[in-house]
This record gives sequence, structure tokens and C-alpha cells, in this order.
Amino acid sequence: MTAGTVRSLLDGPLRLVHLGLPAVAQAAAAAGARVTHVDFLPPAGGDPRRLSDLSELLSGPSARAVDAANARALARLLASRPHLVAVAVARDVIPGMADDLFLHAGPPVTWERMCGPLRGAVVGGLLYEGRASTAEEAARLAAAGAVRFDPCHHHDAVGPMAGLVTPSMPVFVLEDRAGERAGTRTYCTLNEGLGKVLRYGAFSDEVLARLAFMRDTLGPVLAAALERHGPVDLKHLMAQALQMGDEGHNRNRAATSLLFRELAPSIVRATEDREKAARVLEFVNGNDHFFLNLSMPMGKCMLKAAEGEPLSSLVTVMARNGADFGIQLASMPGRWFTGPAQQVRGLYFPGFTEADANPDIGDSAITETAGIGGFAMAAAPAIVQFVGGTAADALATTRAMGRITAGTNPGFAIPALGFSGTPTGIDLRLVEETNLLPAINTGIAHREPGVGQVGAGLVNPPREAFHAALAALAEHVRTAAADPAEPARAPARTDP
Amino acid sequence: MTAGTVRSLLDGPLRLVHLGLPAVAQAAAAAGARVTHVDFLPPAGGDPRRLSDLSELLSGPSARAVDAANARALARLLASRPHLVAVAVARDVIPGMADDLFLHAGPPVTWERMCGPLRGAVVGGLLYEGRASTAEEAARLAAAGAVRFDPCHHHDAVGPMAGLVTPSMPVFVLEDRAGERAGTRTYCTLNEGLGKVLRYGAFSDEVLARLAFMRDTLGPVLAAALERHGPVDLKHLMAQALQMGDEGHNRNRAATSLLFRELAPSIVRATEDREKAARVLEFVNGNDHFFLNLSMPMGKCMLKAAEGEPLSSLVTVMARNGADFGIQLASMPGRWFTGPAQQVRGLYFPGFTEADANPDIGDSAITETAGIGGFAMAAAPAIVQFVGGTAADALATTRAMGRITAGTNPGFAIPALGFSGTPTGIDLRLVEETNLLPAINTGIAHREPGVGQVGAGLVNPPREAFHAALAALAEHVRTAAADPAEPARAPARTDP
Repeated sequence: MTAGTVRSLLDGPLRLVHLGLPAVAQAAAAAGARVTHVDFLPPAGGDPRRLSDLSELLSGPSARAVDAANARALARLLASRPHLVAVAVARDVIPGMADDLFLHAGPPVTWERMCGPLRGAVVGGLLYEGRASTAEEAARLAAAGAVRFDPCHHHDAVGPMAGLVTPSMPVFVLEDRAGERAGTRTYCTLNEGLGKVLRYGAFSDEVLARLAFMRDTLGPVLAAALERHGPVDLKHLMAQALQMGDEGHNRNRAATSLLFRELAPSIVRATEDREKAARVLEFVNGNDHFFLNLSMPMGKCMLKAAEGEPLSSLVTVMARNGADFGIQLASMPGRWFTGPAQQVRGLYFPGFTEADANPDIGDSAITETAGIGGFAMAAAPAIVQFVGGTAADALATTRAMGRITAGTNPGFAIPALGFSGTPTGIDLRLVEETNLLPAINTGIAHREPGVGQVGAGLVNPPREAFHAALAALAEHVRTAAADPAEPARAPARTDP
Repeated sequence: MTAGTVRSLLDGPLRLVHLGLPAVAQAAAAAGARVTHVDFLPPAGGDPRRLSDLSELLSGPSARAVDAANARALARLLASRPHLVAVAVARDVIPGMADDLFLHAGPPVTWERMCGPLRGAVVGGLLYEGRASTAEEAARLAAAGAVRFDPCHHHDAVGPMAGLVTPSMPVFVLEDRAGERAGTRTYCTLNEGLGKVLRYGAFSDEVLARLAFMRDTLGPVLAAALERHGPVDLKHLMAQALQMGDEGHNRNRAATSLLFRELAPSIVRATEDREKAARVLEFVNGNDHFFLNLSMPMGKCMLKAAEGEPLSSLVTVMARNGADFGIQLASMPGRWFTGPAQQVRGLYFPGFTEADANPDIGDSAITETAGIGGFAMAAAPAIVQFVGGTAADALATTRAMGRITAGTNPGFAIPALGFSGTPTGIDLRLVEETNLLPAINTGIAHREPGVGQVGAGLVNPPREAFHAALAALAEHVRTAAADPAEPARAPARTDP
């Protein structure tokens, strides 16, 4: 900087750039200085214990081991290749599924603590399974423990919103076809469409009739078509959809269209009854979110490949049951770290307001965990019309997520960002260091059972879940360092 | 600017910003000044006669009348609503079509002046129509005048690349369903796909077999499906596709997918033979450019609505026959202003170079004329992988086209540009004033008959066509001003 430039800068009143508490700079502002305020929070929110854990994990003796574990986990995630291989009945294929078991979204929750839409879905599920003939009877049965409840995630499954999976529902079966974890399977129900649907807690006759159509027609027709067609490479399809305005969570129009095109000839050839084939095509064409129930188990399949690195700080699950938001780490698969489910900021359908909204619910945040959804907002600028904001916000969100992720997915290139890959592999340490929470796109369910969707928007996880995970990981890493018997890497798989 | 800033600017050597001929600033540069050169060309390329015509049309007594005529023409273009209403045989529906007539792309051209790919397509057309049994015989017949040639545009039709339409080809029938020109019909053949295809001048057995499938199966099945389905609103479909990475000329994957989804159930219901339905679905699924042959006649339909404003300077046709590039104005429908077809700058398929390329060919520039294609590049950043350049170039191209257009199309919103509409209605005056030529996305045909596509890229029209049009419009406007009997507006349509 030349002397002239400095003189020019000092030509006006004093200018300050201030980081931190606004109050500190008030006196300077009162004295005529121009103060530019920059939001600033110290890493880990400034909590001394968390700062100590964080510095241990980021720059202590274990930091390089954590980095290496994350690199291995991310490499496996990126190498995975989930394919849609079949459509089958939940009780026949989901590991541990039983006639008296209902699966739901998010971390474990009892009937007593279940939110309205999840209760509504359970009621609908009991009616659908023929276990009850009225909503009242179903609610009594549920309260009396007639069925057990388990998170979808405990059974390699995921479900949007309430995420209910009952034994006789048809489900997509995905299989990892590449990488070290080839053979891994994940599961998801078929998407019902919008309006009054079970996943938003509705259980009217219209909802049950649609579920019956899905069981009796949609499921079997798709199963036969897939058998004829062969496996569908979902990452390849998602990569194209990300160049066509989808982000794989709140916008799935392109991927739905591409899947439809791909399967339609096989649907026609595999179905003797032309009218049946036409009704299946019509149903899928009528639902731009049909692919959501494939982008979710695709994400789950990718993230299962990352699991089992004892020192990894990567997040492999983010899921909500409408009361709690839970996350899991690649280093401790199956262990939940939770906090309260948050309110969604978004746009409401006519006639509804924030007062109608249930807190954040669903396993669909698995898309963000896998590097799409909110993390791929830059690929889907048109989505801002649905969730609020501007096209510039969409670019900024994806860029911001790059600050809390371990890498990018070169297979998921975003044209508007010069074909750079979506930020992938949420690093718990970076979330704590930057205080930047994952950005999640989501739908909004009415808080009462039986109503349905009332809007869509953006939400973040609760910080508490990340704080709890940080403490546990620091402890875990200390234990591993103290006990050399602790395996430094996950045990090799015994089945090939 | 403060004194300090000025001092700082002068702290270094002399800095000059120079507009115009680089030679003028050479002495200053030699003396040590830092010279920033800015490309600059005076309006209308600096030609005194054109400058005089241009200033008359832009700021003379007629300027407001031209502005008003353009506003009316643009309003009609925007109000038009082309629908796909039928698939039929060319000879049955195209006005003036006859058994001895072949239509081709671009302005009129004789067999003697036809380029290689157009000759190849004519040879293929004669084989397809059963008029010849060998390529040599077909070429002899064509040279001997066995068929007449006419531009597609003279028959309310458009055709990509060679643009050949022969009497027995199936064609899409579009109809304007709204605005003052409701009832206007336009036509286009069905897209053959990529590889060896007639429109790129190939005529092998494979090409002829595909054309036979299109005549015997694809055409009739689509005709029956459309009859059952009812008209398809193409502007609505295009609007969605522009939010899904299409620009409607070199990228049509989204629109093809959306049309496929929409028609598939009707295809199945309207076709007794399931295998036939499956083959049609497979054919369309196999060709991401299927919708190009709908975005083109959609553009033609919109532009026909703009025609017939005697004082308008809007361009309503841009078309190339591989030798000449011709444009037409809304004020003088049917009158061609031409210049030499240009070389396309682009990416070549492996094994081919610029030396193999035929000059620019095809009616597909009707998409740019209607405000999509190159004008909507910002909607399709992924296209740069196909035609060269970066995602930023795509945004810049759309913004630049805003400098030569009369308005934007609010129905065609581009998310990445804050949902502003595509620049629409090329104003000849603005092209001349800015020296900025329309940006056209296009395919590249091999210069020899029988080969096919060798690449894709970007091209501009020749300036000569615009210069000729400017002179004619200035004369036309002067005549109109001198003769009050000349209608100031197009005559009202007599049929409702």
C-alpha cells in the first residue's frame, strides 16, 4: 500500500471492523467512527471444555489419526455405488423386520413422546395392516403396546417425515455394487405423493386406499419391471439430476423423470394388463417426489460404507422423530447423540402458519449427510421458490457447507460452481470449530395427527447433538490412544 | 475522488484506457504508459450509410413508430401459446406440400449450390420415398429436377440441420391456442436421435430403417396417444425445462423427459400391441434431443404471432441452408436477407477436426430467434461441456443477448439470473448499434454427404444479413412515412 493510499483511507472518519459482541464497539461508534460489525463466535461456542476437546482432535497428537480415518471413510463413501436392485415386501427383506414391528424416522422414541404426525402415521399403519378398524381403536392399541417401535436406521432403512414402515409395505431394495462394502443393502418405502399422505401423519380413507394401490399394483408392477430391466445405478442418475435442477431432497423432479424414462419400457413389457401399467406410469408421473425415496436410501447406502472407522469424526446419520434430532458418527455406528428437534423456517401453504408446524421430522436429512439436499442447493436454484430465499442464497449455502465437510464428491458436479463436486462428509470437528450447522431442506408437517403437509423450508440440527458427539468422540479417541488393543481401523469384513 | 486518491493513482507510471484501433496508443505504450485496450467498434461498424439509416430508425421521426410496432409484435409473441395437437403425415397437413416437393432448412437454394449434408439428406429422402434405389440414382434424379425444393419456412415448417421434409414423413402439428393469432399452425418432423441420421446428411440402410420405423410405428403410436391425451402446452413444458438445465436447442434432456412422462400413460392405453408401445417408449428414452423438434416449431409458432407489423425491426426468422444464412423481419414476412453461412466454433467428436465441418446449417436458430437456445444459455450451464466454455460464459451470453432484444419473456424464467425472463425479440437496430450478433448453439455436420454429425458448438450469423435488412427496413419505413395509404399496422386477420 502506498503512502497515498493510506492518506486516502484516512481522509474520512475513523473506520473500524469489529468482531464479536456489538456492545464493545458502541463507544467508538458514538464518537463518530464507522463500525462494520462482523458476527463472530469463538470455536465450539467458546465453551472451555469443548474447546479443549476440539483442540485435541484438531491439532493434538490424535489429529492426524482422525484425519486419516476421515479420509478412509470418505474414500469408501465416494467409492460406493448404490443400485436399485428390487422392490419387495418389507417383512420379506428388511433385516429384523417382524409382524409386530413398526419402524419410524429418527432416533428411538416411545408412543408417549411421539409427536402428532408420527402418532397419526402409526394410527394409519395399524389401519393399513388391518390391526384396527377405527383411528380410536388404533390409538388405544398403540398406547397398549400392541406393536413395537424401532428406528428405521436400526434396520438399514430410512423413511421420509414420519418414516413409518409396516410389515406389508412394499420397499425399494438398494445394493452397493462397488467399493469395499459391496453387497451392503438399504431399504425405503415407496413415495406416496403430496397432499394427504401417511408420512405427514394423515390416515383418512384416501390415504389408506393409496397405500393399498401401492401394495397391490405399484409394488408388484415395479418389482416385475426391475427384474426385467436389471439394477439401476442411482449415483449415475443422481449426478445427471444435479445438472437438471434437483438437489435430491426437496426437489426431485429431474431424477423422477429420468427414472421414469428408464423404467417405462420394462413396466410395459412386464405387465400383461395394459391398464395396470398405465396406472403405474400415471402414479409416478403424478409425483415429482417419487425419487426422494431413492435418494434417501442411496445416501444411507453411501454412508454405511463410511461407517466403522474408530477414530473418524464424520457424521454418518442425521435423523429426526419430530421430538429429537439425532446424529451418529462413523466411529461409533448405532450410538445416538441427540438434541431437541427444531422449528423449520420456510413457506407455508395457504391457510397455515408457523403455529401449525410440527418440529423437524424425518430421516430425509440422510441426503444432506451424504452431500446432497441442502448441501447441493447451488444445483437447484429454482428450489428457492419452494423454501424461500434467492438464487444467490442457494450458491452461498453450498459454499458454506464446504467449510464443514471433509471433501467434495467429484461424481456429483454442480455446473453453476464450475463443476465442483458437492461438499461431502460432515466433519463434526469443523461444525464445532466454525459453529456452522448443516443446512437441511425439508417439508413441514402439521403438529396434529391426521392433517398432513403445511409447508416446506430450511432447518438446522440442534447444537446439543454435536456438542454431545464431540465429548464422546474426544473420550473415545483418548481411550483408543491409552489402550493399544483398541483396533485402529474397523475390522475387515468377513463376508466378501 | 479525494486529492489523496488522485495522488495514489498517479503514484506509478502513466495509465491509459484506450478505445478503438490499438495502433493509436502504441506511441504512449512505447513511452512507458500502461495502456488498457478496450475493444470498440462504432455503431453499425462505422459505415456512414448504415449509421444514417440506424440513427433514422433509432432516434429519427420514425423511431417511436418502430418502437411501438416492436412492442405490439413482442406482446403477440409473448401471448401466443403453442400446443402440440397432433402427429400426422406431412403431405396431409403441411400447406402446399406435394408429392414432388422436398422441404429443406434455411433460405432457398438450388441443388447446384446445396452443401454436402443437404445433398446427402436429399439423396436419403429420395431413397426413403422409394423414388430411387441407389444413392447414385437419387443424386442423378435430384440434379435432373425430379423433385422441387422449397424452404421449410415457406410452409410454416422448420427442420433441424438439413431440415429435410419429404411427403410421407410423420410430422408434429402445433397450434397456437391463445392470443390474437390463435389457430396458427406450425410443423416439424420427428427427431431421429444422434449418430448416423438423415438431418446430418447420412443415408445408409440404418438411417432408412429408422425412418421406416418412425413412419410405421412411432408416428402412428404418437398420433393415437396424442388423440387420447389431448393437446400438450409446450410453453408450459419449456418453462419447466428451463429450470432443469435445458436451453431448448443443444440441450433438451429435461423437456424430453417431461414430455415422455406426460405421454407415456396415453401411449400405453392407445396401443393394443404392448411391444409396439415399449419400442416407442424406448426410442424416445434413447434420444435426449427428441424435444428439439418441438422447441423449434414452438419458436416458429411464437414468431409467426409477431409477424405482420409493417414498421417492426424485430427478427422473426434466422435459418441456414449450409451455404447461406438468412433472416426475416416482422415487418416483411417472407423476404430473406442473407449472408454466407459461418464456421461453427466448438468441440469435435474424436477423429474429426474443423477441416471436416460444413458451415452452419439448419432452421434450429429459430429457437434463438424465439428467445431460447443460445439466449437461454444461463439456464443450461451444463451445456458448456458439450459446446465448450465455462459456466460463467453461459451467464454472460444470456446477459449479452439482453443488449440486442426488445424485452424478456416472463414465462421463461431463469433461476440463476434471479428468475428474470429470457431475452426475447431480437431488434435489428440493437444488433447494428452494438455490433453484437445473436449467439446460436448448434450441431456441426460433416461437409461430405453420408457422414453425419462431427461435433457441436457456437456460431453467429453473418453481419451481411443484418446490414441488408437494415437498408431494406430504412427504405421500407421511409416509403411508409411518405405514403399515408401504407397501413401503419398489419391488416386485421379476417378469419377469427
